[in-house]
Amino acid sequence: MEKVLKGACIIGQSGGPTAVINASAYGAIRAGLDSDVITKVYGAAHGIRGVLDDVLYIMDEEDPAELKLLRNTPSSELGSCRYKMKDPDVDDTDYKRILEIFRKYDVRYFFYNGGNDSMDTCNKISKYMQRVGYDCRVMGIPKTIDNDLFGTDHCPGYASAAKYIATSCMEVAKDATVYDNSQITVMEIMGRHAGWLAAAASLATHFGAGPDLVYLPEVDFDLDKFYADVEKIYNEKKKVFIAVSEGIHYADGRFVSEAETSATDGFGHAQLGGLAVKLSEALKQRTGAKVRAIELSLLQRCGAHLASKTDLEEAELAGRTAVEAAAAGDTDKMVAFKCSREGGKYTCETELLPLEKVANFEKKVPLEWITPEGNNVTADFVDYALPLIQGQPELPLEHSLPRYARLRKVTAK
Amino acid sequence: MEKVLKGACIIGQSGGPTAVINASAYGAIRAGLDSDVITKVYGAAHGIRGVLDDVLYIMDEEDPAELKLLRNTPSSELGSCRYKMKDPDVDDTDYKRILEIFRKYDVRYFFYNGGNDSMDTCNKISKYMQRVGYDCRVMGIPKTIDNDLFGTDHCPGYASAAKYIATSCMEVAKDATVYDNSQITVMEIMGRHAGWLAAAASLATHFGAGPDLVYLPEVDFDLDKFYADVEKIYNEKKKVFIAVSEGIHYADGRFVSEAETSATDGFGHAQLGGLAVKLSEALKQRTGAKVRAIELSLLQRCGAHLASKTDLEEAELAGRTAVEAAAAGDTDKMVAFKCSREGGKYTCETELLPLEKVANFEKKVPLEWITPEGNNVTADFVDYALPLIQGQPELPLEHSLPRYARLRKVTAK
Repeated sequence: MEKVLKGACIIGQSGGPTAVINASAYGAIRAGLDSDVITKVYGAAHGIRGVLDDVLYIMDEEDPAELKLLRNTPSSELGSCRYKMKDPDVDDTDYKRILEIFRKYDVRYFFYNGGNDSMDTCNKISKYMQRVGYDCRVMGIPKTIDNDLFGTDHCPGYASAAKYIATSCMEVAKDATVYDNSQITVMEIMGRHAGWLAAAASLATHFGAGPDLVYLPEVDFDLDKFYADVEKIYNEKKKVFIAVSEGIHYADGRFVSEAETSATDGFGHAQLGGLAVKLSEALKQRTGAKVRAIELSLLQRCGAHLASKTDLEEAELAGRTAVEAAAAGDTDKMVAFKCSREGGKYTCETELLPLEKVANFEKKVPLEWITPEGNNVTADFVDYALPLIQGQPELPLEHSLPRYARLRKVTAK
Repeated sequence: MEKVLKGACIIGQSGGPTAVINASAYGAIRAGLDSDVITKVYGAAHGIRGVLDDVLYIMDEEDPAELKLLRNTPSSELGSCRYKMKDPDVDDTDYKRILEIFRKYDVRYFFYNGGNDSMDTCNKISKYMQRVGYDCRVMGIPKTIDNDLFGTDHCPGYASAAKYIATSCMEVAKDATVYDNSQITVMEIMGRHAGWLAAAASLATHFGAGPDLVYLPEVDFDLDKFYADVEKIYNEKKKVFIAVSEGIHYADGRFVSEAETSATDGFGHAQLGGLAVKLSEALKQRTGAKVRAIELSLLQRCGAHLASKTDLEEAELAGRTAVEAAAAGDTDKMVAFKCSREGGKYTCETELLPLEKVANFEKKVPLEWITPEGNNVTADFVDYALPLIQGQPELPLEHSLPRYARLRKVTAK
């Protein structure tokens, strides 16, 4: 039996926001407020920066009903950061400062909600506190639309972004084929190193209509093969819908978004606009088709109105589990999901993984889930992703527009 | 009492698709199938092109349950076109061909669903049939996300796009302010000549959080004033969210999207990418802020999952009214909406307007609804638009993804 550790907790949000990261925050905050060992619940303003800068919001002072609205509020309500902590062996300034703040507020629990970099931060803080002998429990709560955290079946945030992408692709597939003309549509989807999000576009095709071609960063991009893929479909039906991950790259590693294509070399200069614009312009020059470049941009990661209920509930569960496990004695872990899809039945349980085992590893789409042609994903991906996007959460509305949480954000002195 | 006119009807969809144009089609098709004077219901493939090319789908052969799904299916399920009819006094080839097809299928009712250009087409066909003495009733059904049709309070399709824009702006406003940095976000919204859609972004700001600045094409765009507007807010809070209509133009009439800005002159060449990219790059150079350019593109006009229930029901009503009025003897009219917002209570009735009075006129946002600074809209706009976006239709889903109509599209011989 672990000893009872009484003290305050800090919850921080880090990295890119998602549609459900606030649901994790709510799960953690609520569990913290309900706990009999956690004496006070602080939210760090802009993640670890809020700890370093001593800007902590007192969650105990919030209206419980407003707190509950966090579940359907997109983005990171406490604020986020992309601050990279130094190695404490090289420079321990930040760690000393964090310890100072922990001591100031008697913080004995630290929960950090984020992706790869955030788990790295979390791990470093955890190990530092152990080393200096400060009694503190540190837990990571997974989050990333990129779905690239190691050791967990999937990451909270991914499924809602996937659902947004799949639904938008279904709608765009309808719109992009409406005229009696030739049209090529290129949609650019987030995912610098892993293609989980772009792969989600295939759900639209599988269950209605969506992209004809899907390119992921897991395989090298070959421009000539791409042109051939597109022109084959174009010659057949005069309409092509292509989904590309922003991270697609040539065999030599250069991102397509940053490199010149042979067809755009004609412009003779670096271009503004993203990958979709570049590829669609190149295809326009080759085929003469009308082209449309669509970049889902921030919309895909903050589309709370299309959140997956499964994702939302799991995000909240991850937050709650982190706090309850820490209160019961666990530390130095990240909450992960262990799922089964046996016989078409989806189940999801939480488990705890050592932080050092998840920090800084990237999980990519398995190569065997990508078609041999490298221009789509297989049914294995569909079987993996479909259970994750199920269910529609009830969205609190006011005047038929979303009603988000309005926190007081009272700062601790 | 008008004489009973028995015969077939053709329903055509034209111009840019919307989230609810198929609801109008459903209203018209269902009323046609239920009518005792309409003997057969044809859907024209790709609008008037389907008539000219003799490609007509027999709606009587569709499964009624699939037809009903048209209500929640975005885009124009019968196909659309942007074919501009010649003046029959100059060249009546197309009109003779239409008459030939009408005679071939004994078409006595023609319903055309579209915006300004489509009402022009509809009007020309109507007048031609009158002149040659072919007994046929012709009715226009309004549709356009641009909301610029003359004589009607608003146009079906507008409100759903407005709701998509307002909701997306609320979400982006959350996302774009999450980091502890400086960020300027520019969102580009459709509307070449009228700013109704861009104005809808202000609903987000009014009821939560949204753009700080909104620029419409109704007033001349002044680049220096724009920079001053943005920098004032930037200096205050380091985050600026700007919504711009794609149609903003300088005093000399040049579209900003096509003209060089002083700050982008440095690039010395025409740029790829849209208006949002151009303005955000210029602001990046001036302020050094991180910038984000977001173009809502096709997403805003096909976002059926965020359709307004009010819009959907009115769209269906417009289609049904056109058919029922024609069957009862009316012709040469467009269905319009007459609305009241007296005392905060919204009511909407249909009325019929002569086609020649609506064709080719554009209705813009009243100048008195634009702030004196020309960088936002007033509460009058909010009062106008808010009732239109109310209500969430029930969306048929399969696997938590939209289930759209799957028509058989049996072609008439």
